[in-house]
Amino acid sequence: MSLRILRGTIVSAPALGELDALEDGFLVAEDGVIQGVYETLPPQYAAAEVEDWSGHLILQSFSDMHLHAPQYPMLGMGLDMPLMDWLVAYPFPLEAKYTDTDFARRVYSKLAKDLVERGTTRVCIFSSLHRESTLVLMEELEKAGIIGYAGKVNMDRSMVDYLSETTEESKRETLQWLEDSKRFTNIRPMITPRFTPSCTDELMYFLGDLVKKYDLPVQSHLSENDAEIETVLALCPDCEHYWESYAKRGLWTDRTLMAHCVWSNEQERRAMKDHGVTVVHCGDSNWDLCSGTAPVRDMLNEGVKVCLGSDCAGGDNIDMFHSVVAAIRASKVRHLMDNKQTAFLTVAEAWYLAVSAPNEFFGEKPGFAPGNRLGAMILADDEELAPYPLDAKKRLERAVYRRQKNCIRAVYSGEKKIFAAE
Amino acid sequence: MSLRILRGTIVSAPALGELDALEDGFLVAEDGVIQGVYETLPPQYAAAEVEDWSGHLILQSFSDMHLHAPQYPMLGMGLDMPLMDWLVAYPFPLEAKYTDTDFARRVYSKLAKDLVERGTTRVCIFSSLHRESTLVLMEELEKAGIIGYAGKVNMDRSMVDYLSETTEESKRETLQWLEDSKRFTNIRPMITPRFTPSCTDELMYFLGDLVKKYDLPVQSHLSENDAEIETVLALCPDCEHYWESYAKRGLWTDRTLMAHCVWSNEQERRAMKDHGVTVVHCGDSNWDLCSGTAPVRDMLNEGVKVCLGSDCAGGDNIDMFHSVVAAIRASKVRHLMDNKQTAFLTVAEAWYLAVSAPNEFFGEKPGFAPGNRLGAMILADDEELAPYPLDAKKRLERAVYRRQKNCIRAVYSGEKKIFAAE
Repeated sequence: MSLRILRGTIVSAPALGELDALEDGFLVAEDGVIQGVYETLPPQYAAAEVEDWSGHLILQSFSDMHLHAPQYPMLGMGLDMPLMDWLVAYPFPLEAKYTDTDFARRVYSKLAKDLVERGTTRVCIFSSLHRESTLVLMEELEKAGIIGYAGKVNMDRSMVDYLSETTEESKRETLQWLEDSKRFTNIRPMITPRFTPSCTDELMYFLGDLVKKYDLPVQSHLSENDAEIETVLALCPDCEHYWESYAKRGLWTDRTLMAHCVWSNEQERRAMKDHGVTVVHCGDSNWDLCSGTAPVRDMLNEGVKVCLGSDCAGGDNIDMFHSVVAAIRASKVRHLMDNKQTAFLTVAEAWYLAVSAPNEFFGEKPGFAPGNRLGAMILADDEELAPYPLDAKKRLERAVYRRQKNCIRAVYSGEKKIFAAE
Repeated sequence: MSLRILRGTIVSAPALGELDALEDGFLVAEDGVIQGVYETLPPQYAAAEVEDWSGHLILQSFSDMHLHAPQYPMLGMGLDMPLMDWLVAYPFPLEAKYTDTDFARRVYSKLAKDLVERGTTRVCIFSSLHRESTLVLMEELEKAGIIGYAGKVNMDRSMVDYLSETTEESKRETLQWLEDSKRFTNIRPMITPRFTPSCTDELMYFLGDLVKKYDLPVQSHLSENDAEIETVLALCPDCEHYWESYAKRGLWTDRTLMAHCVWSNEQERRAMKDHGVTVVHCGDSNWDLCSGTAPVRDMLNEGVKVCLGSDCAGGDNIDMFHSVVAAIRASKVRHLMDNKQTAFLTVAEAWYLAVSAPNEFFGEKPGFAPGNRLGAMILADDEELAPYPLDAKKRLERAVYRRQKNCIRAVYSGEKKIFAAE
């Protein structure tokens, strides 16, 4: 049995808007599974080694629930275009390069390393349409100690000929990829139609059947941009609403993630709530591409599940501290736009969306709950000036906004310490 | 004579929205004054030492035109309150601590160091109302190699009794401070009424007379928040508009900086244009405090001068890369709010506001113009992945959005290299 005991100031998010803080406590994990958070170390661990992070914050690590791995090299580029133009100008030409698995290896090994250094231990991530490069991505993520899901992208109705697959190819490659993925333990496959405009109905139905047959999770995009929505409705005469283009094809389940949902109206939100679909809010990206700002407060009030994503590379940063601040700011824009009627997200609320809300998707409880797999990061803020002695919650608040350089000292995922600062 | 020759990829902003880029060039300064940017090194420098930054970007350094030095210890805290409540809950209690010059020394030496490391070489900065701590601030900035203006804050109509001065004290201390400031060369005094609600008319007229008598620049706040504007109009029955509370007291000149101007209407903007007043736009802060988003595009179209500020600590970061991104995003919010009629700021435009627009305030030309004092930073981006070989402008765009950690390798201000990364 492997035992991990971390001592320090422990802050976790047990519920939306709530923070549990223990100024000097112990976080204990056995075989990578959290046993508990204790004020005093239980007697059975008295002889065990303790990693002493006193003075530092011990925080839940991040889950980045939406990002495009192949777009990492263009992070921060071309963000002055609307979605549909941008896709053709930037991501598509870049994604076409992933026929080359050496290029994929170079990018994905760096991405995995950079995610871990920033405290991200779980992902739901898009690859490109290339089966072999997708396997490289899964391998690099697993090697880095990251847990989660990755998806070979399906797109048999591409907007460009240099990045496309026939319906037959897409089906065949998907089946082969599912077979090949069996060798991975911590990174599992996720069905990933790029978005409705990129996939024929035939392919969507096929993917829906796979979801049912193998009980697979799904990730895609929904209601990000006005031009995109119009395209979907034109392509799918059987659908009155965008979401039905997934629902009618068997891709709308309680294991479905839908990124963006900027323009999701009451009806669409209701359909998410009723089917347990999870929204992935990407505040940075929604602004960068001028998509709009998602009605996150309404979603939360209505009981829709919401997580956060960096959306690399519509978002410009894979650091989830940025995604948390972006979620707060997006909510403040909505607050301003409706004459301050809609409450903006507090730091504690946005933090919950980044570190605890995703737990449900992974079959876990919020916070550092016993039984959860260990996902934690050590954050140093002791050298910073403070106006007065800060309690743990204030320190977290400051850390979220400051996004200090080199503040993450160590990261843990399951049994492993996957990052240690020099 | 001191000679400085920097070789590398040189990018500068000669005009709003324009970038000059030289893939392999030489930037030459004599005695801290720029001589020129050259494709080939002129013969007279043939024997001189060249600092070779090939592969790196040589960029103009930042001017942070609005920030509150004493608020640095609370950076990133309490950003869930509207302006007037926030002032009383956070900045005022903290600023009261600057009766202690040792505390001031500790904060200001760190602030100066942190500014320089982030490529900020020029500031227009608020101190607190304390004369002695203001002198400490000026000393620390000058020692760090920063150039610009600092102001002892005037506030004889404070909202709190623990941070206030009588009108007589404020006058006397201001005169003494102006006298004491004569010992500084690069950090010069700037008249700094906190904002109209904090100063009696008598004090404002007194300050206006000083401005005229000694030809001093002015900095203050304008039209940041709706409650603030209402307060001003109630306090100043002789003023129909907020700006007149400065203008009628002699504080509205072509050397006046006004921070925020979120709610400045056509009339107020016209008054700025006509008198050469400069707006300091602080996008981060305006969101954090839910003030609104300033009509920057209108200002630029109408010929109003606009610069950027971090507004530490209404803004949550002193890194001006963040301020550039915040300006772009604020403009995108306006773009979304008016049905995409108002064009958002491009990266080149926002970059200009951060590095070139302030030059006019300092009596210089935009860009790396001959005759300007040298203000430059070296930015490393060579280890990053790229989708294809990037030209200099694309590299700058990516650097702005990515805000990579440890990317600034060296910073120059006047004759001195004021920062070198380890």
